[in-house]
Amino acid sequence: MGEIDLSKYQTRTDLVVDLINDDFKLENRRSYKGITISNISLDEENAKKLNKSVGDYTTIYFDDITDNTNYYNVLRILTLEMRKMLKNSNILDNYSCMIIGLGNEKSTADSLGVITAKKVIVTKHIYDLTGSLEKGYRITTCLIPGVMGTTGIETSDIISSVVNKTKPDFIIVIDALASGSVDRLLKTIQITNTGINPGSGIGNNRKEISENIFKVPVIAIGVPTVVEATTIVNDTLNYMKKLFSYSIKNKSKTIDKLIPSNHINYLKNNNYTLSKEESSYFLGVLGNLTDNEKKILIKDVLTPIGYNLVVTTKEIDFITLKLTNLIAEAINKSIHNISTKNI
Amino acid sequence: MGEIDLSKYQTRTDLVVDLINDDFKLENRRSYKGITISNISLDEENAKKLNKSVGDYTTIYFDDITDNTNYYNVLRILTLEMRKMLKNSNILDNYSCMIIGLGNEKSTADSLGVITAKKVIVTKHIYDLTGSLEKGYRITTCLIPGVMGTTGIETSDIISSVVNKTKPDFIIVIDALASGSVDRLLKTIQITNTGINPGSGIGNNRKEISENIFKVPVIAIGVPTVVEATTIVNDTLNYMKKLFSYSIKNKSKTIDKLIPSNHINYLKNNNYTLSKEESSYFLGVLGNLTDNEKKILIKDVLTPIGYNLVVTTKEIDFITLKLTNLIAEAINKSIHNISTKNI
Amino acid sequence: MGEIDLSKYQTRTDLVVDLINDDFKLENRRSYKGITISNISLDEENAKKLNKSVGDYTTIYFDDITDNTNYYNVLRILTLEMRKMLKNSNILDNYSCMIIGLGNEKSTADSLGVITAKKVIVTKHIYDLTGSLEKGYRITTCLIPGVMGTTGIETSDIISSVVNKTKPDFIIVIDALASGSVDRLLKTIQITNTGINPGSGIGNNRKEISENIFKVPVIAIGVPTVVEATTIVNDTLNYMKKLFSYSIKNKSKTIDKLIPSNHINYLKNNNYTLSKEESSYFLGVLGNLTDNEKKILIKDVLTPIGYNLVVTTKEIDFITLKLTNLIAEAINKSIHNISTKNI
Amino acid sequence: MGEIDLSKYQTRTDLVVDLINDDFKLENRRSYKGITISNISLDEENAKKLNKSVGDYTTIYFDDITDNTNYYNVLRILTLEMRKMLKNSNILDNYSCMIIGLGNEKSTADSLGVITAKKVIVTKHIYDLTGSLEKGYRITTCLIPGVMGTTGIETSDIISSVVNKTKPDFIIVIDALASGSVDRLLKTIQITNTGINPGSGIGNNRKEISENIFKVPVIAIGVPTVVEATTIVNDTLNYMKKLFSYSIKNKSKTIDKLIPSNHINYLKNNNYTLSKEESSYFLGVLGNLTDNEKKILIKDVLTPIGYNLVVTTKEIDFITLKLTNLIAEAINKSIHNISTKNI
Repeated sequence: MGEIDLSKYQTRTDLVVDLINDDFKLENRRSYKGITISNISLDEENAKKLNKSVGDYTTIYFDDITDNTNYYNVLRILTLEMRKMLKNSNILDNYSCMIIGLGNEKSTADSLGVITAKKVIVTKHIYDLTGSLEKGYRITTCLIPGVMGTTGIETSDIISSVVNKTKPDFIIVIDALASGSVDRLLKTIQITNTGINPGSGIGNNRKEISENIFKVPVIAIGVPTVVEATTIVNDTLNYMKKLFSYSIKNKSKTIDKLIPSNHINYLKNNNYTLSKEESSYFLGVLGNLTDNEKKILIKDVLTPIGYNLVVTTKEIDFITLKLTNLIAEAINKSIHNISTKNI
Repeated sequence: MGEIDLSKYQTRTDLVVDLINDDFKLENRRSYKGITISNISLDEENAKKLNKSVGDYTTIYFDDITDNTNYYNVLRILTLEMRKMLKNSNILDNYSCMIIGLGNEKSTADSLGVITAKKVIVTKHIYDLTGSLEKGYRITTCLIPGVMGTTGIETSDIISSVVNKTKPDFIIVIDALASGSVDRLLKTIQITNTGINPGSGIGNNRKEISENIFKVPVIAIGVPTVVEATTIVNDTLNYMKKLFSYSIKNKSKTIDKLIPSNHINYLKNNNYTLSKEESSYFLGVLGNLTDNEKKILIKDVLTPIGYNLVVTTKEIDFITLKLTNLIAEAINKSIHNISTKNI
Repeated sequence: MGEIDLSKYQTRTDLVVDLINDDFKLENRRSYKGITISNISLDEENAKKLNKSVGDYTTIYFDDITDNTNYYNVLRILTLEMRKMLKNSNILDNYSCMIIGLGNEKSTADSLGVITAKKVIVTKHIYDLTGSLEKGYRITTCLIPGVMGTTGIETSDIISSVVNKTKPDFIIVIDALASGSVDRLLKTIQITNTGINPGSGIGNNRKEISENIFKVPVIAIGVPTVVEATTIVNDTLNYMKKLFSYSIKNKSKTIDKLIPSNHINYLKNNNYTLSKEESSYFLGVLGNLTDNEKKILIKDVLTPIGYNLVVTTKEIDFITLKLTNLIAEAINKSIHNISTKNI
Repeated sequence: MGEIDLSKYQTRTDLVVDLINDDFKLENRRSYKGITISNISLDEENAKKLNKSVGDYTTIYFDDITDNTNYYNVLRILTLEMRKMLKNSNILDNYSCMIIGLGNEKSTADSLGVITAKKVIVTKHIYDLTGSLEKGYRITTCLIPGVMGTTGIETSDIISSVVNKTKPDFIIVIDALASGSVDRLLKTIQITNTGINPGSGIGNNRKEISENIFKVPVIAIGVPTVVEATTIVNDTLNYMKKLFSYSIKNKSKTIDKLIPSNHINYLKNNNYTLSKEESSYFLGVLGNLTDNEKKILIKDVLTPIGYNLVVTTKEIDFITLKLTNLIAEAINKSIHNISTKNI
């Protein structure tokens, strides 16, 4: 094993929640009807530790968005959390807004930002024409800059030139993200006032889109739509340890033997861990590597043969359709002061 | 009739050829395998007369683009004429190019510019990354600014800000146009180095996109995709006169009576005109109105009841598919110095 | 004029209302919030006269379907009329239904049937799996047979073979139609229990899809999406006569001279007709042709030169999107006994 | 470990090559410009062993289909292998063909069959109309039956009813498949004259589509577009063993230490295996499980927590576009005797 370089492996993730430990003091986590809401505020010290930007991060976890009731519960929560984020970022009711949809519509896994942006309400052209808007509406524009592979232009150059020309008071940018764990794939929405940072998104070379650059608040909304094969394998090995632990601890319980293994959800119980010896017995040297070491090893296995695929689930088309409706509606309801009967 | 205001009616057309008389001295017109090529150069005097901009206009007419042989003939001619236009506009081989696709992809009749732009080759991102391009390729970018109804932003503002930022040496802009006569609908391509002028395009409020504004040459490529109901009616009344004239002149020719009327192409013969009395007999007062007066009358009939529809043919989806392939390929072959075996 | 054959011209229309005179005794016509509903029942005698099938025809006219309030009013009326049609056709609550979407999705003007069918609720697979359905739901299937140009198979052969295999108790078939007058284009929905008849639809060669063939009730829902150039010209000439009549009758009214002509809606007033002499004066021989003769003449003018285009409005993409939502929702609400809060 | 049921695990794969050992005597395997072609003929005995149908299986492996040269090499090979398959299946030049595209166009991973079918040439309607076809063309139809979730009808019922009505002499069916190993994902085309068998395809409940059912030859063309998470994890553990073995065997070679591990392709060398003791050392109990046992274990870990995802790569949209062009062109060139300059 000595031949393998175990220097720091950078997990590919755009979610802050992937980086903090569950008992991290900064996280305020609560649940509502099976939906979990996490609020994290990173000060300079903590931001540096996590290699993230200073600011607020809200993360909403949910299960099946194709269920109607659940859809409306998530919509309600997202709208409320968006409003809080706008308020915390000192965005006033009369501030004009530019909504930016990042990504490539032709690639399902990278299309979420563009499709969402196509569904938001824009109003600036009406304001420019008539000099006023219906009560409750904010001056809003929408920009879909495309991707460098089809425009030949650095995306941030398109954005900065249009922002400088039209001078919105704040920006909302929507993008597809990479997930650092299997269980968040298409089941998480992250909102942050830190904008989009270098290397974010599922495309490789995103440049920073943030208040630093544009001098106006930038709220970023992201959903993880892809995960690396390395992550799937590492997660599975960790789940495997939990199942081994569960099996050992429940060996003698007759009742448990009657439950088919595919009905046991061992995941929720944090007590299922293995001793060093147990890990060695079940998984050899592999069993006692740190998470970081395991990921480096798996990446070292998959990369040279070209199989560290970035993957997504087969259902992505249907879920993206629902998610883009949901996020667009939440944006409309949080930036404009309009009919909120469902909220 | 006196009640109807017969002041100058502005035919809705973006084609210069709709405005000049067939014997106009400025037009250089030739044919090749059933395809007609017209070159017009407007100096200040003539431009003023026609209310058009000073510059070169090349118009290519063709019939069925869905026929493969015809497709390649039109492609060949369009490529050659594009190259001439670039040369006449003093565009050098090392000039960088921005291709702009105007219009709304969601509206078939307005989608031609956007769909074409999505099919062109872009290279600037490769040049920026590697510092060079394969031999024959020009630095090229592509911009699809969208329409005001979905962006909330004046389209020319998006274009000018990105042009100012990326500083291309010349611009090619592609747009769907309105036709001033039924017979040009989806059967004409106009190239001009005067750019896009106010009121052009099938959207209502296009602003100028031209060398005046951007200080670099702007080549505009347009195809008429729509026509006003007024134009259809006026054209039909004129065809009717020709048919009446034909009928009178061929009354006694036995041979002609044997030809079913739906096989007579009376249109090509310019000798078929009616005398003032004949016009009165067949069409009453209507028969002796000028073209301009007839159009005003028809518009006056259709507008108050909301039926001066802007229409397009049922086949537009299939023809647009072919035309966008053809124009994109002609652009690629004329701006880059690449494989031209078909040319 | 004698040279032109004035034998019976067959107006291209699929709407029964285009064929009957406004004072026709069989029509029951009423209005609700600007929407007109016409019910016609043709017995054998009247059906023969109009060259149509024996049965019930309901026609709903409306204006701007993109207006939200109007959308819901039309939806409400369509749902109620659909329910009446099902009841009149003796379709019981436990009858199974097959919904068939005709046309070609790739051609906007011909896509209405296919797009609508993709939006209806199907249930048979759930019934087959579980042996029951949620209360209120009917056993429903959906078939999109495609068009002969892309399947190579006669569409009615695909339908009949699947109908014979799956044996639905009744059929709903949705199709785009040709309009016999400009004012009905995309502003009319026709429902009939006579099914689809030869020559219907905007494709040329539709075969009969009716109870005669399938031995179960066939409800056809159609929307006119195209109109022939001939129709536009003929309609305009008729409107022209009305405007001439209006102008004559209001010559001396000072008040009227103050109203700009584009604000006069002369169309609604049926009193505006011209005498034979007035017609001759304004429109010559053309002015005193019957409608039928005029149409033959116009067709004779346009056909040999290839300009009798079948056209549609520039806005078809947006209106089709709305109409397919509306019709699909009305079908779901009328065949299933589900949430009808909007009804 | 005893608690985990290690009874036979059924790998989810539709590829025969996933089931045979590399040294299997029935396989005829050769390579051409980096493309591998495998021909397998299963007699009754071998078919039973593998739980597959009696017949011929041709499998083509390739790498980057987005490379133009490679695209044409694969096209050439696929066309030639298709022609061999037609010949081996005794399909004569005058046999009529029905092409069936299975799957759901709305789900990228399941859309390959439908999109391919939309690109094939159909001719039967021309033959029916004119009584003949251009030289070289076969009577061909195309059917896209949809999926049960949107039709409510068992797909095989739609197919059988249309087949019985139109009576093609043979059938070509195209479908997206599940892969039994990561390295075949979107890089393999399987052709077989055994048709589609129960449980095939990426949808769950496909019924048999074969000569047994339809009494005419059925050629199935499939491409694996998805893979289970279980497969990714199991493949990775096997690759890991190879890398461990490689590392041990090359420990002392100085030259090797200079090669970064991400440039070593250890996969191609079949000599890299671990002893029982080495496996235990590196991977514990897990290291000495059989492939089958490992898969059961992984599935047992992932299934109860809902993470045995069926996944696909992020690039699927672009590769599917290329593959559907390639397969449609190969079908056109192999069933019709038309221009084959590229072959």
